[in-house]
Parts: sequence; structure tokens; C-alpha cells
Amino acid sequence: MPRNQQIHLDNRPQGEAVASNFKLVTTDTPALVDGQVLVRNHYLSLDPYMRGRMNDAKSYAQPQPVGEVMQGGTVGEVVESRSPKFAVGDKVVGFGGWQEYSVVDASQPGSLKKVDTTHVPLSYYLGAVGMPGVTAWYGLVKIIAPKEGDTVVVSAATGAVGSAFAALAKARGCRVVGIAGGPEKCKYAVDELHFDACIDYKEHSDGKAMGKALKEACPKGIDGYFENVGGWIMDAVMLRMNAFGRIALCGMIAGYDGAPLPMAHPALILVSRLKIEGFIVSEHMEVWPEALTELGTLVATGKLRPRESVAEGIAAAPEAFLGLLKGKNFGKQIVKLV
Amino acid sequence: MPRNQQIHLDNRPQGEAVASNFKLVTTDTPALVDGQVLVRNHYLSLDPYMRGRMNDAKSYAQPQPVGEVMQGGTVGEVVESRSPKFAVGDKVVGFGGWQEYSVVDASQPGSLKKVDTTHVPLSYYLGAVGMPGVTAWYGLVKIIAPKEGDTVVVSAATGAVGSAFAALAKARGCRVVGIAGGPEKCKYAVDELHFDACIDYKEHSDGKAMGKALKEACPKGIDGYFENVGGWIMDAVMLRMNAFGRIALCGMIAGYDGAPLPMAHPALILVSRLKIEGFIVSEHMEVWPEALTELGTLVATGKLRPRESVAEGIAAAPEAFLGLLKGKNFGKQIVKLV
Repeated sequence: MPRNQQIHLDNRPQGEAVASNFKLVTTDTPALVDGQVLVRNHYLSLDPYMRGRMNDAKSYAQPQPVGEVMQGGTVGEVVESRSPKFAVGDKVVGFGGWQEYSVVDASQPGSLKKVDTTHVPLSYYLGAVGMPGVTAWYGLVKIIAPKEGDTVVVSAATGAVGSAFAALAKARGCRVVGIAGGPEKCKYAVDELHFDACIDYKEHSDGKAMGKALKEACPKGIDGYFENVGGWIMDAVMLRMNAFGRIALCGMIAGYDGAPLPMAHPALILVSRLKIEGFIVSEHMEVWPEALTELGTLVATGKLRPRESVAEGIAAAPEAFLGLLKGKNFGKQIVKLV
Repeated sequence: MPRNQQIHLDNRPQGEAVASNFKLVTTDTPALVDGQVLVRNHYLSLDPYMRGRMNDAKSYAQPQPVGEVMQGGTVGEVVESRSPKFAVGDKVVGFGGWQEYSVVDASQPGSLKKVDTTHVPLSYYLGAVGMPGVTAWYGLVKIIAPKEGDTVVVSAATGAVGSAFAALAKARGCRVVGIAGGPEKCKYAVDELHFDACIDYKEHSDGKAMGKALKEACPKGIDGYFENVGGWIMDAVMLRMNAFGRIALCGMIAGYDGAPLPMAHPALILVSRLKIEGFIVSEHMEVWPEALTELGTLVATGKLRPRESVAEGIAAAPEAFLGLLKGKNFGKQIVKLV
């Protein structure tokens, strides 16, 4: 029985999330019963949506329970199996949580999926070829539904969702403009992620400056916007949207800490005849196969080369997560456990 | 040549619109040239959208020009014709503006339409069987797209749009809840317009009280919302929307006077996976025939008996319009000219 280090939610945040909301716990892994497999987690995914679940608020998802392992996506290797579906050595993606080992009931549909690491590195199944990639795909293809030549904008441009969004939108003949924090991220977005332009929100740090930068970067206006952040950046983008523009809303990271986050100009929805739609990718499992196929191909052909921000060891997870909420990561934030 | 009294926009509002923004002007009607008809306007339509056009702001429509006749829908009778398409005595609906007589170029497609007043009173072509009715139809059928048993809510419930919305939604098996100002309007909504319930926003005059009233009136939550008003009422409704709810946004009367009108909880769009869509019915002419057929049938069979607020004489138009913006009308606001 290997020893298993875990991160628990110890208590809920009062306002901003802090390190003391988490607790490192060491346990033994239990003996398996029939149908179960033991997975050694190689990488753990950190995602903004987790912050929402730390609150005990009405939301689309059950809150993360206090005193239990933080929930989250993982990739790893089967190290023991009492299921006919999985063999020791299989590489798998699942929802193992913030811990080194997970016991998984393999009879549960969707609990664990075998993946091929020939052309796609294992960790990418947490990012570009995983939930964030499919999130970008759904928002772009099903909500924004761009025509060739449309201008589309994405916030958090160098993150896992943003980088997949750019590759998918370029493949559809769009002009793709990113918004990211700092010159290094913006340079990376243009040089490596194929954005046509990227606006530094730290340089253009109020609505007026952002509006001017958007006008320059989007001379034909904005047809589609993929929102990861919310707040004043969304307000500035809405002012530059073309008639019949579409906004896919998949995150409002700016509001997770509980500060009220109003939308300044909702009348623009009417004036510009906008469509705004919120979505959660796990409710649209029907698109995953199609989306993952396209994303895997983009990675295998070098058209999508997402960057990763790698924290080392389970104990580093809370700090890395808090940094993610402040935009300190650069690319998909993961924790390397092996 | 009959004398023609007109209301002009004399100057643009600074904040709230006031009577001195308008001017009564008397002119002669000009002699017709080939292709033109002279229409004596029997009724003039007053609609909230006109307030938006009085501003010189970026919007979907050209601003109403200063020093010219206020634009607006009219119904009337052809009194002189130099067009083979129209004969003297024809009842017509058009966009004649705030004046007693209009000269119309009948060769222009859509400039004038002959209507049948056998089963539908002439003035209804400005309301239930006109632009407001089609507005309700489009928002309900194309955006909210309710299933039988859904709960739908409409603000400005006893207005032209709201009353048509109720009849259309009842025909689709929905629970229909209105929001209106004052006990008299609410009673009328339930007794005459077939609303299942109607909430008095003057009685429930803050977000908390409105939320409680909505919870009682909509025990299964809200699946669709047709927004005519904006502001705190919309905020309260959003808090009660079910997952995958749809909001059709066709007016934000609360914001026309230029005061900023933020949306308090846009994160709900994500949390409840809402779709919000703004629209202008004149951009969807393809639905008009289908919508008008259904609306005409509802009127002819007594299922839609809209109420009218009638001002008398062209000089009364500005005051009636300013009252409309404050919710003083009760039913579709028109001005009777003949």
C-alpha cells in the first residue's frame, strides 16, 4: 500500500482564497475491491472553475465538500487493477483529485479513459486535448460559430483555453485577437500561438485604454468573444462588438472572490443585437469526440503548441492554484507529481 | 390641400425627455406626384423605442433628425391616390409619423400595406396585430422557444407587447407571469389578458421583495423572460432563472434617459447557463406573415383582447409619449386623430 499525500479543502474562503483554506494530509491507499483500479497520478490539473466550487453558494456544481480531497482532473498510470477494462501500465485520464494516488471504480461510465501518448504528451490531456480544449471548441464552434474573416477575441489568451481557441479559430479563417497580462505573454501569444494580435491588459489598464487598443487590433470590430475573465475587460469588449456579435461565457474569474461584478452596459445587448450564452462543457459530452479529434490533430501537426506552467509536487498545488487565480501562471497550470 | 398638423423634434433631450423637446407645426400637404398617395392618419402609434432615437447616440437605428416630423407607425385611410396600387378609401398601415396627413411613395416596397378591418379593428394594426405583436412573437417563439409547461415572465405586462406575449404563451401551454405597475394593471392582466399571475412592481419595489414575489408566482423557477424594461427588475428575474433559461431583450426603457443601467449579476449567465439575446423585430421581416396570421387569429377568436390607452388629437402626442416612458399608459398607447 503506497502512502498517499492529498490536499483537502480545510475551510471555505472568506472573500479571497488563501493558502490556509487548504491542508496537506497523508494517508494510506486502501486495498482494492473488484472493479476498482489504483491510478498513480502523474499530473494534476488546476483550473479556475475550482475556485467557484470552494464557495458554498448556489451554483451549477455541487460545492467542494470541506474536509475532503480537492476535486480535479488528473492523468496518470494504472499501477494495480481489479477491473478487466484496465491493465497495469495503461495511461489514463480521469477525475482523481489533488492527490498522488486515486482509487477509481472503473465500472462507472466515464470515470477513467485510456489515452494514447504516441503523438500527444500525457499532460496535454489535461489541457489542449482535454476539458479546456473542448471548452474552447464548444464556445467557438457552437456559440460564436464564426464565418471566415470574422474577428474573434479571447481573454486569458495564453491559458489552456485561450491557446486552443486561437488554433481552432485560425483553422476557420478568423482574425484572432488575444488579451493577456504582460508583454512576455503577449509576445508569446503572437509568436507561438498564432494570434494576429494580443493586447496587454496591464498596459491598457482601464476601459478607455482597452477600448482604444481593441479598436486598433480589431479594425473591423469584433464578431465573437470568448469570455474567461469578466468585469471591466468584458465591458470594454462589448463596446466594440459588431451587430449580431456572439459572446461565449465560460468563466468569470474576476468575480470568484465574491466581489460583485456588474456588467456596465447591458443595453448594448439590445443596441448591438448581441447573443450572450453561458455554458459548461461537461454538459455537452456529445461534442467531446469530435472536438478531441480536431484538437489532437492540431497538436500532432504542430499547429497547437500549448505552453504549460508546471508546479512540482502535491504540496505545491495550493500556491500554484492561488497564483492561477491572479494570472501568475503562463500557459496551462498543472502540478507534476511523478 | 388639407392643412396638416405635425409634431417635430425641436431639440434633443438632456437626460429625461420633456415636452419642450417637441414642437407643434402646421403646414399644407403638398400636391401629389405620380406614384404617391395621400393618407389621412386615423391613429398614431407611440412606442418606447422612439425615446432611444431621440438621442444622438450610436444605436441600431438612425437618430430621429432634429427639426423634422417625429417618425412612427400609423394607420389610416387613403384620401387621394396617384398610384395604381391604392384606391381612395383603402385602409392602410404605414410609417407616417406624428402628423395628420402623410404623403407616401407607394412604389417603395413596404411603405404602405392595405389591411382588412372585418375582424380586426384598424388601431390594432399598430399593436397586437402589428409591430408590438410581432415583437412578442419573435421573442417568445424564436428566442425563448418554450416547451409546454415552461414558466415565462414578461415585464410591462399590460402593454402592447406584454398582452400579445401572454396570449401567445398561453397558446403554447406555458405558465405566464407578468410584471406591471399598480394593482389595477395587475388585476387586468389576470382577469382579461389570461396571465396566471401578475406582480406589482410598485408594491414589490426592491430586488428582495420582487425576488420573493417571483418565487411565489413561479414555484418551478423561470424558463423564459421577455425583457421590456431593464434595470433592477431584470436583476431580480435573473436570480430566479432556471438552468438553460432564455432571455429575449427587446427594450430597456429604464435606461433610455441616459442614466447608466448596469446588470448586477452577469455571473448568473454562467452559473445558470443562460442565453440572452437582443433583437429588433424589423430585422426579421421573414417571420411577419406567420406571426401576423397567428396574432390576427387570436384577436378574431377573442383570445387576445388588448387594451388601448387613447390620447385625442395630434397636440396630445408629446404628453402621451412622456407618460408612456413613465408607465402611465394602460395598454397600447395610441393617439386618435380622426
